Amino acid sequence: MKNPTVTLMSDFGLKDPYVAEMKAVITSICPKAQIIDISHTVEKFNIRTGAFVLASAAPYFPEGTIHVAVVDPGVGTKRRPILVETNREFYVGPDNGLLLLAAQKQLITHAYTITNSSCMLPRVSNTFHGRDVFAPAAAHLASGTRPEKFGPEIKDYLVPKFSAPEHTKNELRGEVLHIDDFGNIITNLRNTDLKKIGIELGSAVHLKLRDRDLNLNFLSAYGEANTGQPLALIGSHDFLEISLNRGNASEEFETRNGDAVTVEVSNKR
Amino acid sequence: MKNPTVTLMSDFGLKDPYVAEMKAVITSICPKAQIIDISHTVEKFNIRTGAFVLASAAPYFPEGTIHVAVVDPGVGTKRRPILVETNREFYVGPDNGLLLLAAQKQLITHAYTITNSSCMLPRVSNTFHGRDVFAPAAAHLASGTRPEKFGPEIKDYLVPKFSAPEHTKNELRGEVLHIDDFGNIITNLRNTDLKKIGIELGSAVHLKLRDRDLNLNFLSAYGEANTGQPLALIGSHDFLEISLNRGNASEEFETRNGDAVTVEVSNKR
Amino acid sequence: MKNPTVTLMSDFGLKDPYVAEMKAVITSICPKAQIIDISHTVEKFNIRTGAFVLASAAPYFPEGTIHVAVVDPGVGTKRRPILVETNREFYVGPDNGLLLLAAQKQLITHAYTITNSSCMLPRVSNTFHGRDVFAPAAAHLASGTRPEKFGPEIKDYLVPKFSAPEHTKNELRGEVLHIDDFGNIITNLRNTDLKKIGIELGSAVHLKLRDRDLNLNFLSAYGEANTGQPLALIGSHDFLEISLNRGNASEEFETRNGDAVTVEVSNKR
Repeated sequence: MKNPTVTLMSDFGLKDPYVAEMKAVITSICPKAQIIDISHTVEKFNIRTGAFVLASAAPYFPEGTIHVAVVDPGVGTKRRPILVETNREFYVGPDNGLLLLAAQKQLITHAYTITNSSCMLPRVSNTFHGRDVFAPAAAHLASGTRPEKFGPEIKDYLVPKFSAPEHTKNELRGEVLHIDDFGNIITNLRNTDLKKIGIELGSAVHLKLRDRDLNLNFLSAYGEANTGQPLALIGSHDFLEISLNRGNASEEFETRNGDAVTVEVSNKR
Repeated sequence: MKNPTVTLMSDFGLKDPYVAEMKAVITSICPKAQIIDISHTVEKFNIRTGAFVLASAAPYFPEGTIHVAVVDPGVGTKRRPILVETNREFYVGPDNGLLLLAAQKQLITHAYTITNSSCMLPRVSNTFHGRDVFAPAAAHLASGTRPEKFGPEIKDYLVPKFSAPEHTKNELRGEVLHIDDFGNIITNLRNTDLKKIGIELGSAVHLKLRDRDLNLNFLSAYGEANTGQPLALIGSHDFLEISLNRGNASEEFETRNGDAVTVEVSNKR
Repeated sequence: MKNPTVTLMSDFGLKDPYVAEMKAVITSICPKAQIIDISHTVEKFNIRTGAFVLASAAPYFPEGTIHVAVVDPGVGTKRRPILVETNREFYVGPDNGLLLLAAQKQLITHAYTITNSSCMLPRVSNTFHGRDVFAPAAAHLASGTRPEKFGPEIKDYLVPKFSAPEHTKNELRGEVLHIDDFGNIITNLRNTDLKKIGIELGSAVHLKLRDRDLNLNFLSAYGEANTGQPLALIGSHDFLEISLNRGNASEEFETRNGDAVTVEVSNKR
C-alpha cells in the first residue's frame, strides 16, 4: 500500500493534545500515511452522531482508506477494540456501533477484535485507546500488517439501531438524524420515501416537527426561498432537510437530534 | 505540476463531514495534492469576511497554489462556479465576489465558468458544490488539466465592493474590515493613509469608533501598552488595528465588522 | 533530513488566516515538510496551558520533529525568539517559558536566540512573529540549515515555574494543571505521589478542590463509575484526574486551572 490515507474522527475537541498524539503515533509508525481529519467536534459521547458523520464522509475517500473513529465512553472497560474490513476500506475503533453504520454501506468481509499487543503502544492506558490502541493499529495496517494479525475474527460486533422511516398512504414518519453547523435539520427521510406519499419537487408539504406545524415548499436549492424563509429540500446526503435560506432552522424551530418528524402533502397552499 | 498545494476555505464549520468530503474528493482524484486549510469558520454567508481572510493568506502560499473557497449562499441557483487564473495562482469557487479580492492582488490572466461535467463528480447536488464541483475542479487542475478545459472564458465575474478610505486634511474615514479571534479591530486604513494626515509612530491619535471617542497612542507592538490598555498599531497585514494589550478590544468597545472609523491627530495628550 | 515533521501550536484560534499563513511560509521554504497541528485553541495568552499541551504531545512525535509554538503576548518587545535543541527534537518560539516544559523532558543540548535575518521573512512585523520569524526558522531548520546558524548560543532562556506537589504523611497538596475539553480536571499529582500517602487503585480518597470536599473512588477507567458519577483516576498523561463518567467534572465542581487540590485517604466509605 503506498501513501495510504488514514482518517481520524473523534469527540476530543480541538484544544487538547489528544488528536495530535494520535497523529504523532501514526506518523511515527507509518511516516508515509496521509492523515485527514473528518471531525473532532462530534458531540461528546454521542455515538449516533459520530456514526452519521463517519458514514456520510467515508464513501468519498479512496479505496483502501483506513478510518479511525473514537467516540468511546466505554474506554478501559470490557468493550472491545475492533478492526472491520469491507470490500472497500477499513475501520478501526471501539465496538460500540460507531463504525458499523459506515461499514454496512459496503460489504463487510471480516471483523477482528484487536488483541495483539505488538500492534499497540508498549503501555496502554485505560483512558486513551485512541492513542494507545486505535492509532497504532491503523498505522500498522497502513504499513502493511495483514488484518488477521490483529486478533481473533469476530461476528458479534455491535450494530447501531437507527429507526427506519414508517409510512401510511398519506403520511411519512421519521426523525431528526443530525443538525448541521448551519442549523439545517437533516431527517432520516429519503426522496424515495417522499415519493411513496406523492411528494415531489415543487410540492407543498406539511410537516410536524415535535409539536410544531410547518407548511413548506419542497424546493431544490436553499436560495430558491427568500432570505430568512424556511424550505424543505433534499440535502447533499440524499436526506430530507428543513432549512432557512441564510438562516438557522434548528434555532428557529427549536429542534434537536432525535426529534420526531411527520410529513404529508399539504392541503394549504 | 508536482505535489501541488490546494487550500480550502469555507463557512462550513468543523463538526460536520463537509470539509472531509471535499478533501476525500481531492485526494481521490489527485493523491499527490497537499491540502492546507485556510479556515472553515468564516462567519456563515459572510462573503466579505471570507474575501478578506483569503486575500490575507493567499500571497504567502507558493506559486501555482490552487485556492478553493466556498462561502456560497447562492449554491444551486444561477450563480456560476468559476475558475480564476492569475500570474501567480488559481482560484476556484462561486462567482459571488469571494475570490476576487485575493485574485486582484495579482494580475488576473483568465477567468472561466466551470461547465465541463467531466471535471465534476458524476452526480452534482444542488446544495454542496464544494464537494461536487469545486473540489473535483481543483483536483483536476492539480492533476494537470488545462484551465481552458473547464468551460468558456468569462470577463464579467463579480467583483466585491469594499469601501475605500476617504480623507480630508485632518481626518481619515474608513471602516472595520475584520475582527480577529483576539478581538483586534482591523480597519481598512493603511500606514500610507495615516501619513497623509500627519500620523506617525508615537503620535497620539483620536479615533471615533461608531459613537465612541478614543484617545490612543500609535505604538508598534501590543506589549508596548500596559496590560489591559488600548492602543493603535499597524497589524500584520499592514492595516491600522485597535487592540487591547492581552485583552479583547472588540468586546471592550462593542465593535463589529463594517462599523465606521474616523481618525485624526489627537489634541489631547 | 527527509520529510521532516513540523508541528504547530498557538492561541491564534481557527477563524483567522494566521495559522494558514504560517503553513504557507513553511511549505514555501520547505515543500517536503509534513505539518501537523497540535492545537490552535490554547487559551489566549496562557503560556502555562500552552506549555502543558506541548509537553504532553511532544514525546509521541518522531525523533527530529521541529515543534513551533506561539503563545506570545510579548511579540515585538524585547523578548527573544529562540531555538532549543534537545537530544530528540527541536523547539522554535518565544523565550517566555512556553517551550521549556516540553524541552526539559529530554536533554537540552543547545539553545540559540534567533537573530540571523536570512532565516526570517524579508519583512518582519511587530505583531506576528509566528509567520515572520518562527515559521521560516522552522522551515529552514527542516531544510537542513544547522541550528548554530540561527544566532548566538544562549544559556539564560526562561524556564516556567510550575509548583511541585507537597506532601505530609497523610496528605498531598497540588494544583489543577489543565481542564480538558471533556471537563476532566487534570492535577499535577502522579501515581507515585499518591502511593506516598497510601492511596492505590480501589482506595476511597478524600479530596479538597478549592473549598469543596469530595469523597471519591480511585478507579481505573471512566466507565467504572455510574453514568454522571464522579471518580478519581490516573489519566493518559499519568496525572491524577477528577472526572464524571460521561459528564463534565469542571462544570460540576466549578473548577479552574490553577485551583488548589488536597488529597488524603478517605475515612468515609
